[in-house]
Amino acid sequence: MRTVVITGGVGGARFIRGLQSHLGEGPIAGGAEQITAIVNVADDMWMNGLRITPDLDSIMYALAGANDEERGWGRRGETERVSAELVAYGLGHSWFTLGDLDLGTHIARTDLLRQGIPLSDVVARLCARWGLGARLLPATDSEVETHVHTTDGEVLHFQEWWVRYRATRPAERFEYRGSDVATPAPGVAQAIREADRVILAPSNPVVSVGAVLAIDGIAQALRETSARVVGISPIIGGRAVRGMADACLATIGVAAEAGSVGLHYGARLAGGLIDAWLIDTVDASALPELQRAGIAASAVPLWMTDLELSCQLAADALRA
Amino acid sequence: MRTVVITGGVGGARFIRGLQSHLGEGPIAGGAEQITAIVNVADDMWMNGLRITPDLDSIMYALAGANDEERGWGRRGETERVSAELVAYGLGHSWFTLGDLDLGTHIARTDLLRQGIPLSDVVARLCARWGLGARLLPATDSEVETHVHTTDGEVLHFQEWWVRYRATRPAERFEYRGSDVATPAPGVAQAIREADRVILAPSNPVVSVGAVLAIDGIAQALRETSARVVGISPIIGGRAVRGMADACLATIGVAAEAGSVGLHYGARLAGGLIDAWLIDTVDASALPELQRAGIAASAVPLWMTDLELSCQLAADALRA
Repeated sequence: MRTVVITGGVGGARFIRGLQSHLGEGPIAGGAEQITAIVNVADDMWMNGLRITPDLDSIMYALAGANDEERGWGRRGETERVSAELVAYGLGHSWFTLGDLDLGTHIARTDLLRQGIPLSDVVARLCARWGLGARLLPATDSEVETHVHTTDGEVLHFQEWWVRYRATRPAERFEYRGSDVATPAPGVAQAIREADRVILAPSNPVVSVGAVLAIDGIAQALRETSARVVGISPIIGGRAVRGMADACLATIGVAAEAGSVGLHYGARLAGGLIDAWLIDTVDASALPELQRAGIAASAVPLWMTDLELSCQLAADALRA
Repeated sequence: MRTVVITGGVGGARFIRGLQSHLGEGPIAGGAEQITAIVNVADDMWMNGLRITPDLDSIMYALAGANDEERGWGRRGETERVSAELVAYGLGHSWFTLGDLDLGTHIARTDLLRQGIPLSDVVARLCARWGLGARLLPATDSEVETHVHTTDGEVLHFQEWWVRYRATRPAERFEYRGSDVATPAPGVAQAIREADRVILAPSNPVVSVGAVLAIDGIAQALRETSARVVGISPIIGGRAVRGMADACLATIGVAAEAGSVGLHYGARLAGGLIDAWLIDTVDASALPELQRAGIAASAVPLWMTDLELSCQLAADALRA
């Protein structure tokens, strides 16, 4: 079976680990079960001349078992010796952490990109080190970067708005800069079209999944695939499971409610993107409205606080 | 007094520290004594997309007191966590060490260079962190890189020939690639012309000092300056003080002898580059020939095994 997961970073990584656990541990890419993660790149940015791809790295490190579970992001056993040097030279960014091990990845990636190798090939090459049991595809090889237009008239790179200002500066709109000319990376549209099932990970619906869907052709492939498309709510009990998705949802006029996000994606049979929508049991009251809208909604435990729960959620998603 | 030192890396760094000690410790750039180091850049190279400038770094770290005295190069307290990541991704260079602290400098430098800032300005900005008590000028802002044509027909970047093959592969000739179109960095020719004294550090006469002199206009400025030009032999008792200068000298047909190197530079009054030449006391037998050639040669202790000896050598150089 070919499973495609459209995802941002940490939440999606946790889900994919659960999926791997459910389907059978270890590298399974060559076996009967194939997992393809289509990963948001719109959080990416240039920093100190290096190309940083936070979501791709979160997925890669998590599937490699090299991530820092406790901190929730980055590499386990990380240090920041290089970053301290950049600060000492007056070139550091106090609001963004560049770990040493992480910098190894950034330098390797940037080195390959500057040689003219497309991001999707670079990702494949970096992932080959780890043996992930899943194929990682960037949504696009183009540089698409989310910018935030704040209500006070500033335009910030998403990372600055998100990490530096913790999404506290009211946003008027998000601009997926570059998405108008971007095309899906090689294999992305095909993977969706040929999938047996497609899952929208419980990632930020606006700046993660939304930014993937903004790439011309990806939403279209989702509408056209014969696979069942199942989404998982990133909102539980009116709050974002991770991060500050509510601030993003508010900006696009969607309530931070599990039901509202499902309706925002919309039923495929009504021109939307999903067939089924998983919400948490605490949000079960939203089921009737979702079902009326043509979405096969079900209420299951969504918290992925350990691998067993992630595994159970994956099983629920495949059954939805 | 304005002292200009034309130099490569470690040997020159040690000499300049001796010079600073002799002239009075601490930052002296703004005082009555001004030291300008004109530093070889032809060892520089691109590695993993980063611009590495070994000689400039050796001088900067040494004058900052941040160098690793024991190892003889690089930063004190260095680690190699990032480099190990590059190796794990199959992108490392086993023969070249990229320390973590050092990488901080490389990333900062490359970041600024890629913004279009000339190397000389980048160097000034990096040095501002440390307060070196000397002005460091790269010989040129252009990319000049020494390549080695081996007798078996290969062409290697100097660093590969030097560090990877330890200069064991016989060289047919050195090519200062890019020097034909390079011009001296801003301030270089002026510093030489306006100097009260110019010293050729005991650096490699072929690939360090020689590569500086290959930049159009620098040798000319040396010939024309009213300053006394004093050279210090990098050869003691027929052997290179540091590194494998003898292999380089053999390639250009100069014997690895203190006297021969002095004659290779030649007397200014006969169209050469130096007025005076310091050789070690063990090489005193070369004095008559040098003096016959019009060079004010003297034999003094050249080993700079500690700061006191470096300081003494600096005093001898200023007196020569």
